[in-house]
Amino acid sequence: MQNHDDTTTAPPEHTENAATDPTDDFTVTPYDIEGEVDYNRLLDRFGADRLTPEQVARFSAPPHRLLRRERIFAGRDVDRFLDAAAAGEEVSVVTGIGPSGPMHVGHLSQFYFAKHLQDEFGARVYIPLSDDEKHLLKDLTLDETATHLRDNLRDLLAVGFDPELTRIVVDTADADALYPTAVRLAKGLTPATVEAVYGDPANVGVGFYPAMQATHLLLPQLVHGAHPTAVPVAVDQDPHVRVCRDLAAKARFDVEKPGALLSKFLPRLGGGGGKMSSSEDVPGILLSDDRETVHEKVQRHAFSGGQDDLEAHRELGGNPEVDVAYQLLYAFFETDDAVLERLAREYRAGDLLSGELKTYAADRISDFLEAHRERRPADGRDELREAVASYRLREDERRRLRHDPLS
Amino acid sequence: MQNHDDTTTAPPEHTENAATDPTDDFTVTPYDIEGEVDYNRLLDRFGADRLTPEQVARFSAPPHRLLRRERIFAGRDVDRFLDAAAAGEEVSVVTGIGPSGPMHVGHLSQFYFAKHLQDEFGARVYIPLSDDEKHLLKDLTLDETATHLRDNLRDLLAVGFDPELTRIVVDTADADALYPTAVRLAKGLTPATVEAVYGDPANVGVGFYPAMQATHLLLPQLVHGAHPTAVPVAVDQDPHVRVCRDLAAKARFDVEKPGALLSKFLPRLGGGGGKMSSSEDVPGILLSDDRETVHEKVQRHAFSGGQDDLEAHRELGGNPEVDVAYQLLYAFFETDDAVLERLAREYRAGDLLSGELKTYAADRISDFLEAHRERRPADGRDELREAVASYRLREDERRRLRHDPLS
Repeated sequence: MQNHDDTTTAPPEHTENAATDPTDDFTVTPYDIEGEVDYNRLLDRFGADRLTPEQVARFSAPPHRLLRRERIFAGRDVDRFLDAAAAGEEVSVVTGIGPSGPMHVGHLSQFYFAKHLQDEFGARVYIPLSDDEKHLLKDLTLDETATHLRDNLRDLLAVGFDPELTRIVVDTADADALYPTAVRLAKGLTPATVEAVYGDPANVGVGFYPAMQATHLLLPQLVHGAHPTAVPVAVDQDPHVRVCRDLAAKARFDVEKPGALLSKFLPRLGGGGGKMSSSEDVPGILLSDDRETVHEKVQRHAFSGGQDDLEAHRELGGNPEVDVAYQLLYAFFETDDAVLERLAREYRAGDLLSGELKTYAADRISDFLEAHRERRPADGRDELREAVASYRLREDERRRLRHDPLS
Repeated sequence: MQNHDDTTTAPPEHTENAATDPTDDFTVTPYDIEGEVDYNRLLDRFGADRLTPEQVARFSAPPHRLLRRERIFAGRDVDRFLDAAAAGEEVSVVTGIGPSGPMHVGHLSQFYFAKHLQDEFGARVYIPLSDDEKHLLKDLTLDETATHLRDNLRDLLAVGFDPELTRIVVDTADADALYPTAVRLAKGLTPATVEAVYGDPANVGVGFYPAMQATHLLLPQLVHGAHPTAVPVAVDQDPHVRVCRDLAAKARFDVEKPGALLSKFLPRLGGGGGKMSSSEDVPGILLSDDRETVHEKVQRHAFSGGQDDLEAHRELGGNPEVDVAYQLLYAFFETDDAVLERLAREYRAGDLLSGELKTYAADRISDFLEAHRERRPADGRDELREAVASYRLREDERRRLRHDPLS
């Protein structure tokens, strides 16, 4: 096996049972997030590395706000990716979505970050849509996942990826290109490993799916030859990356182990550190929300770091650290660091009221959403098919992924 | 769900652990055959029905020798198949092969029988080639299974199926047409069921494979609408049929449960009731064996029912029941019942010597193999691709099997 990754001689990667670790009071697997997440302990548990300031600085000048504000805070094989990018060599990014509902801001920020890496480094971006996974895991038919998929796709297209460098693949529709590799990878994946990493699979499709997901992460290399791949994902998706790294080595593919860029979860409107999409009682902000709805949701539901009454707030000031309106601005929606600093200062001083901060945040969120929606392709199946056509696998690329004993 | 099979209201089918039944001294699963097979107890265990003389008579006049000699001896939903065939309605046959080596006579007899049903009833014949399964189960790369697959395919083409009514599908190469259905079926298949029916899967690909196999058995109906399907397989493959019947109902496909036509194993050259391909020490007869090799193998290795010396044989006579040369003639290679009866009579009387019986059998086997090989397509990848082209899924058929949210 040719493998450019010098970590292949290291001991096997940490794959202990994340779902049931008895020493921690929070749970993070790709299928389950519970409790307040301690990101440091999570990194220890997963065996990923916190990004250093030097690494962050190498991405771009200035680094993307997700990096410089430590929303993307950890990774695997980041130096290898940055070295290749700095040398003008080929690099790729893989980040996908499971079409089980409307896309959330958390997903979208990953795609905008992938687009940033494409702009910065000419990175190829491969976007797998795992309709199989969502059908297998959730109470959704493949027709229902297809409806969600088309909606998600409009949001993906709105990001503005370069069609020359970007490929969108659908697990069911592109199975001829994916399944042969998944079968090769599945040969190295035992039910015991799947159970340890993901918990007990509800059905044999869920048990097989990690082999499909591992396939996703190898696609750019299987099409274009071995090169560094970064996988920007929320930290809960890291097990997929770890499993893929192990399987790629076992299956003797001529690839490098995919690296990871791990991000924290966006704050929930109601507060707390879990996934935005996982909130139960408080409605999340949807990409389809109009300005009025965003204002209403933020004013009504965003957990406030301000004081209980005006007088106390003027005197004691607010706490931006726990204020969800501020945290949303910090996490993604405010691009200008100076503005953020001013808001934090004024909020702490009691000069900026909680409602004022919320209004500002709701405006920035709405600005972003309106600009994003503006770029979505027109409604209609034909329009969508046409818009996505240039992002689908080309025939020669598909041929490199297929396995046809008769060809 | 629409299901034309009136057994859907019956209790769930018998799916107990065939691999570890402690009361029997033989083991039959799709992956393992050990001991002398008691076909009656096997049918009880699997819950399939022995064919009645009335059923056998309905197939054709006279019935195919595999039926009238009880080589094909049991089935599921056979009346439903025969009713539709008698009414001139659409019927299908699905029978495939896993490309892990040269095709054996046991496989080939199934395909010739499928061809017979096609000639008799105009049955569609779907032939799935499970290269994924063989890669996952055996020490074979997909390149190696591809080599076996092309060799197997030459034998399949030599059978002379009608290209208008026959489709050959390859799990890896046709995954776009197979995987979406497999995912739907996999949703209803728990790891516990797979373990109970097939034993502990070595990897998650093996665990998922029964969903692909179940897909195979539904292909004619998914392409052409609900109608009776017969699956002529060696009795050890019956668990695949049972699993498919359960999954098809769960996934609410508009299909009938596939029926089965179960056959006994061809006798091993060295004697015993297992699969011909499973013999360890005694070489099996290969489809590629020339006349001289067949004679040598039969003379040297075929277990004889004759007496130890000429004098005893002339006096006591031989026993055709255990004589493998006779059993091979009976099972498949002698088409004329009158000849078989004469051979048995003369052998029992001691007039026919063991060596003479072997010579006769080796000649009939060689006649069959030579005629079969004569019909194999010419060597060469291009020749094979051209020969198989008319048997592959047509675009409109493939479209009916695919799931493309973007189309």
